[in-house]
Amino acid sequence: MMRPFTSTIPLEEARRLLNEAARPIVRLDRVPLEGAGGRISAEDVSSAIDVPPFARSVMDGYAVVSSDTAGATRSTPISLQLVERIYTGHMPVASVKPGTCSEIATGAPLPPGADAVVMVEETAARGTQIDLFAEASVGQHVGRRGGDIQIGSVVVRTGDALTPSRIGSLAAIGCSKVDVFARPRVAILSTGNEVVEPGRSLEPGQIFDVNRFSLSAVVAAHGGIPEPRTSVPDSIEALSRALDDCAQADLIVFSGGSSVGERDLIVDAVAARGRMIFHGIAIKPGKPTAFALVKDKPFFGMPGNPTSCLSNAYILLVPFLRAMARQPPFIPHVTRARLARRISGPVGRHQICTVRLAGDAAYPVFKGSGEITSLSQADGYVEIPADQAGAQEGTIVDVTLF
Amino acid sequence: MMRPFTSTIPLEEARRLLNEAARPIVRLDRVPLEGAGGRISAEDVSSAIDVPPFARSVMDGYAVVSSDTAGATRSTPISLQLVERIYTGHMPVASVKPGTCSEIATGAPLPPGADAVVMVEETAARGTQIDLFAEASVGQHVGRRGGDIQIGSVVVRTGDALTPSRIGSLAAIGCSKVDVFARPRVAILSTGNEVVEPGRSLEPGQIFDVNRFSLSAVVAAHGGIPEPRTSVPDSIEALSRALDDCAQADLIVFSGGSSVGERDLIVDAVAARGRMIFHGIAIKPGKPTAFALVKDKPFFGMPGNPTSCLSNAYILLVPFLRAMARQPPFIPHVTRARLARRISGPVGRHQICTVRLAGDAAYPVFKGSGEITSLSQADGYVEIPADQAGAQEGTIVDVTLF
Repeated sequence: MMRPFTSTIPLEEARRLLNEAARPIVRLDRVPLEGAGGRISAEDVSSAIDVPPFARSVMDGYAVVSSDTAGATRSTPISLQLVERIYTGHMPVASVKPGTCSEIATGAPLPPGADAVVMVEETAARGTQIDLFAEASVGQHVGRRGGDIQIGSVVVRTGDALTPSRIGSLAAIGCSKVDVFARPRVAILSTGNEVVEPGRSLEPGQIFDVNRFSLSAVVAAHGGIPEPRTSVPDSIEALSRALDDCAQADLIVFSGGSSVGERDLIVDAVAARGRMIFHGIAIKPGKPTAFALVKDKPFFGMPGNPTSCLSNAYILLVPFLRAMARQPPFIPHVTRARLARRISGPVGRHQICTVRLAGDAAYPVFKGSGEITSLSQADGYVEIPADQAGAQEGTIVDVTLF
Repeated sequence: MMRPFTSTIPLEEARRLLNEAARPIVRLDRVPLEGAGGRISAEDVSSAIDVPPFARSVMDGYAVVSSDTAGATRSTPISLQLVERIYTGHMPVASVKPGTCSEIATGAPLPPGADAVVMVEETAARGTQIDLFAEASVGQHVGRRGGDIQIGSVVVRTGDALTPSRIGSLAAIGCSKVDVFARPRVAILSTGNEVVEPGRSLEPGQIFDVNRFSLSAVVAAHGGIPEPRTSVPDSIEALSRALDDCAQADLIVFSGGSSVGERDLIVDAVAARGRMIFHGIAIKPGKPTAFALVKDKPFFGMPGNPTSCLSNAYILLVPFLRAMARQPPFIPHVTRARLARRISGPVGRHQICTVRLAGDAAYPVFKGSGEITSLSQADGYVEIPADQAGAQEGTIVDVTLF
């Protein structure tokens, strides 16, 4: 017989327990720099070279001995003898001695003897006589050797997210491969006798699998590798076999099997392999959510209802997965809006109410936990803490955007 | 001889011209739903079925004739005869007639005759006699056929970003493949005699290619497919050949070749194949940035300096690429901070000053356009409009976070 669902824990307690249980991944991947964007560095990378590796000009112009330029103005130019043209990628041959200069391109090595560059805009050329219209101070327009990155300095540290600029820093020191933390492999599986793969045809009483797809999209967007599996029926044998088949994953996420009758099956299957950390959260939607350790692997038992499942994926699974993946916490965009209709709701459950935005008005669109359109037609959600019964029309609320 | 760099256009004008030139991609990919997360739908997908396809229970409990339950309370229960247990995935066999009920699981089809469900928590079973402790109204705890998605209704429209919930909606209607807009193919190439692939060894006067890697990471993160190519030297022949080799790409991004001497080469190579839209922006860093149409393909000529290049990739390339890819505009996070040191700067150029945050203080970390660490050690940037000379220490500024 069915047993009613009674005990729940507050959302804050669920978050605390999840936070405690999240183990950052230690497995590494060695990846080419081309594919390292968005990954998390697993090494302190220090530079074996100075960047730039030589003093260079940061302007197009003329490399000079700065003391030669004293007093130069537009009306009293100083004239120097051109001795060389220095292009990028080539080493200068001539030294710059007092009274001489070398034409130099941006990025080309500073010639010996020169200690400054006068930009081309402040010069005029008459054959190999170069007139300078401005004084140059020592070091002017010169990028000194190691001025960007010094030999031996650490450019990327363990745990740093590889942003485009950090990828650029690694390239700058000649690094073509980098150790990053592996992305957690997340086994995703929907349970339920009634659940059928999209693309097949439905028999009476059947519905299409939704959660496998919505959960996979969430996992892929937050640093995990989704490993979706075909759904399994609600039997202790099928659930047990499915759990065992997920042993290679870093994180196991089942959905369904959380209603009264089926719940006991999951509880039994989990109990035989590990321990339940919590089962039931005072949140709406998403109450029948479980978290367990199954042979030391973290296991989420998500509600079968598509909106409950996806809502808790955002609220609970995403922070857990990102902690495992060592990704920085996700910061959603939040906007203020005026509630266009009252939200009713039970005291004692933290409520996630999806809304659609129109101008500064937020319209509740939550239809039911089973309705995926409660989410797909929403722009974001409003949270009502467990100690409030709802929110009145006209209240100014924070809308967390999807 | 070198020609000085004179004319620039304001940043706003560059943005306007880019906005005008961005053509949303029309090529399609047909992708499995598993791989469609984050893509942009290229079709209006309407449902061929009702979701759910049958009336179902949204609670574990008992399917009843609601009129049977009138007057039921804890102290005056009403007793009904159990006629069937209905599990998910199976069609009920028995009808529920007055005086009878069927046990029903969440998600199981409502049996004929029943018009409401009493949740298990409000019942007690004595063998096949079920005591009800509460009245049920018509339709209570019943998810009606089509209550989520009605047959014929459109669940995803052309141009919709495929968020996890929209992916879920497509799965719910049995859709296993979807037409999405192709991601723009972006040819990325660094020019410069001095530029060497990371992983090789440097000869005197050479530096490692940075922009190819930082630009690829930006492109991949904003809906494009980076197609990095090996760098080419600064010669009209090499640049022309490289441009022709990029004919298959949707967008061409070169970096380097923007300093005075080299710039003319790019100008000539572009002029032979299309037309320059602008060349030179009143922005710091990133002034020597060009945009052209090369045989009708959009072409960005980015500065060779790594920070100038990446800064303009964020400011100009990202919005352009996202418009091409039909991705919604990127909304960065912005935080307020107190400027810990004065920022100086030229009037007449829009300035992007990278800063590091420490508490509520923002420390300028911009070292130079050539310094990739100007970006990789920054948390975000402060913008100083072209009509301001800089910003005083202590000013409260908006920091756009990376």
